[in-house]
Amino acid sequence: MHAMTWDRQRLLQLEGMAANDLLAIIDQAEKWRGIALGREPRLNTLAGRTIANLFFEDSTRTRSSFTLAARRLGADTIDLTNLGSSVSKGESIVDTAFNLQAMGVHAFVIRCSASGGAHLLAKAVNVPVINAGDGRHEHPTQGLLDIMTLRQHIGADLKGRTIGIVGDIANSRVARSALHGLTTLGANVIVCGPPTLAPHSFESIAAGPGKVGVEHDLDAMIPALDAIMMLRVQFERAGGPPLISGDYHALYGLTSERAARLRKGAIVMHPGPVNRGLELDSEVMDAAPPHGKSVILQQVSNGVAVRMAVLAMALRSD
Amino acid sequence: MHAMTWDRQRLLQLEGMAANDLLAIIDQAEKWRGIALGREPRLNTLAGRTIANLFFEDSTRTRSSFTLAARRLGADTIDLTNLGSSVSKGESIVDTAFNLQAMGVHAFVIRCSASGGAHLLAKAVNVPVINAGDGRHEHPTQGLLDIMTLRQHIGADLKGRTIGIVGDIANSRVARSALHGLTTLGANVIVCGPPTLAPHSFESIAAGPGKVGVEHDLDAMIPALDAIMMLRVQFERAGGPPLISGDYHALYGLTSERAARLRKGAIVMHPGPVNRGLELDSEVMDAAPPHGKSVILQQVSNGVAVRMAVLAMALRSD
Amino acid sequence: MHAMTWDRQRLLQLEGMAANDLLAIIDQAEKWRGIALGREPRLNTLAGRTIANLFFEDSTRTRSSFTLAARRLGADTIDLTNLGSSVSKGESIVDTAFNLQAMGVHAFVIRCSASGGAHLLAKAVNVPVINAGDGRHEHPTQGLLDIMTLRQHIGADLKGRTIGIVGDIANSRVARSALHGLTTLGANVIVCGPPTLAPHSFESIAAGPGKVGVEHDLDAMIPALDAIMMLRVQFERAGGPPLISGDYHALYGLTSERAARLRKGAIVMHPGPVNRGLELDSEVMDAAPPHGKSVILQQVSNGVAVRMAVLAMALRSD
Repeated sequence: MHAMTWDRQRLLQLEGMAANDLLAIIDQAEKWRGIALGREPRLNTLAGRTIANLFFEDSTRTRSSFTLAARRLGADTIDLTNLGSSVSKGESIVDTAFNLQAMGVHAFVIRCSASGGAHLLAKAVNVPVINAGDGRHEHPTQGLLDIMTLRQHIGADLKGRTIGIVGDIANSRVARSALHGLTTLGANVIVCGPPTLAPHSFESIAAGPGKVGVEHDLDAMIPALDAIMMLRVQFERAGGPPLISGDYHALYGLTSERAARLRKGAIVMHPGPVNRGLELDSEVMDAAPPHGKSVILQQVSNGVAVRMAVLAMALRSD
Repeated sequence: MHAMTWDRQRLLQLEGMAANDLLAIIDQAEKWRGIALGREPRLNTLAGRTIANLFFEDSTRTRSSFTLAARRLGADTIDLTNLGSSVSKGESIVDTAFNLQAMGVHAFVIRCSASGGAHLLAKAVNVPVINAGDGRHEHPTQGLLDIMTLRQHIGADLKGRTIGIVGDIANSRVARSALHGLTTLGANVIVCGPPTLAPHSFESIAAGPGKVGVEHDLDAMIPALDAIMMLRVQFERAGGPPLISGDYHALYGLTSERAARLRKGAIVMHPGPVNRGLELDSEVMDAAPPHGKSVILQQVSNGVAVRMAVLAMALRSD
Repeated sequence: MHAMTWDRQRLLQLEGMAANDLLAIIDQAEKWRGIALGREPRLNTLAGRTIANLFFEDSTRTRSSFTLAARRLGADTIDLTNLGSSVSKGESIVDTAFNLQAMGVHAFVIRCSASGGAHLLAKAVNVPVINAGDGRHEHPTQGLLDIMTLRQHIGADLKGRTIGIVGDIANSRVARSALHGLTTLGANVIVCGPPTLAPHSFESIAAGPGKVGVEHDLDAMIPALDAIMMLRVQFERAGGPPLISGDYHALYGLTSERAARLRKGAIVMHPGPVNRGLELDSEVMDAAPPHGKSVILQQVSNGVAVRMAVLAMALRSD
């Protein structure tokens, strides 16, 4: 087991977390993978505890993952997903949380469109807070599940490994959490996208031993990668003109041809949901190991296990 | 008990199901009627199992019925009802289901507007799938609860009995499931509606020993019936001009006068929700046996029992 | 313990309830405060029972409070919150409830925009009904939690105490329930607002030993109060022109200056959610005893305890 220095009471970002803390969560998640897959009986670790899912921005997938994680630990969940009613009444995130805390809720999982929204909440309440994605900031459980999946395929020690992240890096909380987590564990990351979406300023983001490089030519970096993480094109967030022009698939999509040029043993990742035919071709997406490279659904399974580990650590009194 | 040949792993349609399989489900449902009514303690048959309600088309009633059925067997449920968020992100039914399967969900209940959507899902995933209504195709648990209700009132053996179905037959999944189930059990069905909505092509739908007749004159067929099943006028599905003109109630509504001409012991059914005063008069709807003929709420109770039986058979490993 | 004459099977309004019945509910709620706060283990009192939350008007907070109360008693809950689908299909409140009753639901909690909607439901079904707010009529569990909070701070015996209620009295179900409950227990209530919103007709509402006075000048009444209850300005209900003009905060808001003029030991209440800076200043709202006067979050906690008591009394067979 990895020794922990993390205070366990909150998981707001991977930035600044020690390698041992990241690995301790993943160690625990590995032990619970059979439960997360629905193959082993659930636990009573969190019996009697209530976890509130505060989803100011809806996400059926992430919310379902947290809900299943909580219930498999014996916790009760309460979903606040259609927060339109309270928000339209002018109630803020913090006032909503104060109210739920007064009702005896034992922890919050928060998803919101404001970068820093999870920190804001954690400062206000006195129970654990888990960030399920806050604006363009971080999505730490996604970063953890990405690391867990990488270690299952390219080796428990990520030092010196090279991971490519492709797409709208600048606006991606998924990329930001992955960058912090991976470089902390010694992996090198190459971010790739059009210059506006993958700016050179990202080279200085690495805090750990791993390095961050910036690349604009997807074809050039493919042979160097141990894993390639395709980001989702976020049509729904674009307020103004499209961030990415029509030739995105040609320039930055993972086509079958490009996937064939990946190193033997390299894996293909995506946080989901995939725009089939845009970020990756359907044939690439649907071919899992040993014959193919896509570990996308394994990421989903690992997500439940990681969230179980995070919730258990945050809520256990021992 | 009735011996079964059904593979139990899915319930997609009543078309093609053997009489013994239909009756085995209903036998089990009869045993659980007290639980379905909330009068007897719930079971632990499905403890530790998670059932996902994938409702691409919302239906508060059908979803509540499946949820209550699952929980009374000890299963956990997860509702995906506001699928707008995923669908607006371009994720298909199958990709949503793949994700939930990767999260360890043990079965799917699906309601969707696409005819054949449940088959599509069942082909893709490797866990049980229950069709809760797919477009104009089938609504098999509704067909089963209709049969269960008929047997409680007009006799366990439906051979030679005559059931009328009135309304928009052509577009009704409720009618289609009832037709397949009832004729398999030897009942004769007369479908009744305007020629465009009750076409003569339906005469060839019967696969079993029962016959299907087509009638356009409601008054003419009333005295011959052991039961009359009124379909709902689906205002909300009409895309273009109304399917049915303003004199629907006069031509095809079950008025008090018409109900009085029903044979002694005959029953009045409706899948709900009823447009009071359109498909049937309120007085007819609210008069239950022994004084009246309406068994509409008994159909609702039987629905929970039937869904318990279907879920238990699909998910039990023994 | 207070002896009860209440039939326990329904809680539709505080109007007409005997003092002993009000106090018996609150006695029970006091015993369960530790559970309501999430500090003590939940109970199995209502194991096997299913409670339906019928929310025709959404309210995240009230629904969460009832849901948590039910689950801490071991009951299962089923939420019907997006009732648009059924209502758009023309199904009435009563038909929806008939259906759920036929599915074995053991009690209803109803929130609706129609004054008297809860009575309508209670007349139709044969299981307990709890009013969670019906139009402009009553919100009895809010009234009970207000009384519970008052007794915790200004004394178990409210006889002769003076409580001010400020805002749109005429349209407030919160004010109506408080007025009936408080005067029944002997407290005097002064309602305060612009003449159209706090009409003199309210002086005759008191049925109990307590008196009701009407005041239009907030500053004049402040020094006389043991507690001040600020009502929410309901922007979202105003169909036509705003009920209250822009100087509401100046005329009827609880500013820091006004709060400072409250008697020592007096408390500040609000049913939530608060429009910060409109009904009360943020500094007043966020200062709880012993240093401040705001008991708003304590009201929220008491709300869960009161709802536990009401549900347990309504559903227990003994």
